[in-house]
Amino acid sequence: MTDLKSTFLNVYSVLKAELLQDPAFEYTDVSRQWIERMLDYNVPGGKLNRGLSVIDSYRLLKEWKELTEDEIFLASVLGWCIEWLQAYFLVLDDIMDNSVTRRGQPCWFRVPKVGMIAVNDGVLLRNHIPRMLKNHFKGKPYYVDLLDLFNEVEFQTASGQMIDLITTIEGEKDLSKYALSLHRRIVQYKTAYYSFYLPVACALVMSGEDLENHTVVKDTLVQMGIYFQVQDDYLDCFGDPETIGKVGTDIEDFKCSWLVVKALELCNEEQKKLLHEAYGKPDLENVAKVKALYKELDIEGVFAEYESQSYAELNATIEAHPSKSIQAVLKSFLGKIYKRQK
Amino acid sequence: MTDLKSTFLNVYSVLKAELLQDPAFEYTDVSRQWIERMLDYNVPGGKLNRGLSVIDSYRLLKEWKELTEDEIFLASVLGWCIEWLQAYFLVLDDIMDNSVTRRGQPCWFRVPKVGMIAVNDGVLLRNHIPRMLKNHFKGKPYYVDLLDLFNEVEFQTASGQMIDLITTIEGEKDLSKYALSLHRRIVQYKTAYYSFYLPVACALVMSGEDLENHTVVKDTLVQMGIYFQVQDDYLDCFGDPETIGKVGTDIEDFKCSWLVVKALELCNEEQKKLLHEAYGKPDLENVAKVKALYKELDIEGVFAEYESQSYAELNATIEAHPSKSIQAVLKSFLGKIYKRQK
Repeated sequence: MTDLKSTFLNVYSVLKAELLQDPAFEYTDVSRQWIERMLDYNVPGGKLNRGLSVIDSYRLLKEWKELTEDEIFLASVLGWCIEWLQAYFLVLDDIMDNSVTRRGQPCWFRVPKVGMIAVNDGVLLRNHIPRMLKNHFKGKPYYVDLLDLFNEVEFQTASGQMIDLITTIEGEKDLSKYALSLHRRIVQYKTAYYSFYLPVACALVMSGEDLENHTVVKDTLVQMGIYFQVQDDYLDCFGDPETIGKVGTDIEDFKCSWLVVKALELCNEEQKKLLHEAYGKPDLENVAKVKALYKELDIEGVFAEYESQSYAELNATIEAHPSKSIQAVLKSFLGKIYKRQK
Repeated sequence: MTDLKSTFLNVYSVLKAELLQDPAFEYTDVSRQWIERMLDYNVPGGKLNRGLSVIDSYRLLKEWKELTEDEIFLASVLGWCIEWLQAYFLVLDDIMDNSVTRRGQPCWFRVPKVGMIAVNDGVLLRNHIPRMLKNHFKGKPYYVDLLDLFNEVEFQTASGQMIDLITTIEGEKDLSKYALSLHRRIVQYKTAYYSFYLPVACALVMSGEDLENHTVVKDTLVQMGIYFQVQDDYLDCFGDPETIGKVGTDIEDFKCSWLVVKALELCNEEQKKLLHEAYGKPDLENVAKVKALYKELDIEGVFAEYESQSYAELNATIEAHPSKSIQAVLKSFLGKIYKRQK
């Protein structure tokens, strides 16, 4: 484990201990144990990319001047707030999707005696964020900006989740609704804001920047988030299951994937008929038909074209940015995802 | 309908229209219609007591000086924020309790095509609160106090809900856990803060008061909230179903009711055995046994004693408050609930 990651995990322990002693609530022993187990089960077990990138970004914004212990701690708190936000979304998403496993273990709501209490646990995870912000940022000039930022990004994420949920309502599967504009909206709101924009926005706010002056940074990170999700859609079908660590099921699940949206754009009437019949069916035969059609339409080539064009555009936008340190932040994100295989 | 209530309902329409035009999200027509239907179904259909009491309290704090239209509007916005908070809790509670009806109609998650999407709708209701606060209070000196207040009260409510949920986990029904201290914790956190303290706290903040200086007001309202919930527990068993509008099922549901807690305090070994055997069973015979025991122990008399003592204590605290206008606010709340039959 890197030093940074172990420092980051130490901050998790501090934050957890503070939450378990929160003076705003009188825990019973049983409820304190419940929260501790719920946090350990749901918060720290992911890749922690979002959280760690707050510290990385802050460091780049400070142009590698040695950070104080206090600065590293505070950037870590913001990083953990994003990880808490992610845990909250995942706990609730798994209930809504009736999922089975998450991060290699049963979804929280499937753990014995948890069940629908997981809904309230999700709510508690979300409520921990303003507690942590209050404990560590109340009194800072940018405290209210952090509250506004987390509120806005959570709203956007939940709104993106809403269009995703209502376009895939059971029994209303209708491929004709799927288009690039819908796909872009879902991924932009459901994923890009909280995964790409939020970590950098946290680092900017901590550096004393006014986010109003950084709409280009926001737009660029949102574009990167969209590109990241298109890669995800591509890897779901064409990636190596060994490398990505799961077997994709977007075709079976009738997902509004970039691949099916592109296929719908490019196909003739006959191919469209096939797609409408085979997409979203659970059997291997229909899945194979869809994959064969993707090959026929050279969706892989279309993706390669999209990838290099996105990369070129993002790079050009970054190069045009007046601040070298912000360029470094954005390049660091782009470098991590360009041509990724997992 | 009173003038105040119709003014208040007009503000709902304004707030809804603003949310449906929120620039932070690109609605599709379908998703805008979804939100509008979800709001109309879940937000304005209750008694609106919590929301209206913000305006009442603010008026009393201003000692009946004529309020400006702007003041009435802003107090109404805060009132609606509380109603939105309530709607969020109810939508999610109904899912967790697997309830059937709410306010005389099917629970939102039972409406066709809604189902588990209701979890995300609950989250959206919660997210609307900071949107409304930002739209109408950003820039006011007390904006951050409002954010902190709503965050803290939501955290307390969800924490109270947690102890309620984990003490009644299916298959772990254990009456020996029930005691007055547990009952007090559940009702204080789950109900009293958001139903009693929050409306007055909103009015105080809007009047320019620092909540740090009003811990007596907070404690008094929390005490009133506890007293209110004890009444609720009493009426569930001894109230007139015609008058309260529902048939109580706390005994069948193994609820940590004030009545069972008091019965456990007062009973002998033999009666305790009966209570352990009969409490939480669904059949009428066992329910009748519990009710007979309540009669034997004169729980009604114990309640009457509790009621008059609570009233006397609350009144004394109120009379001792240095501010006449705050006395008026607190007396107004107490007057509405003392000896209520519904």
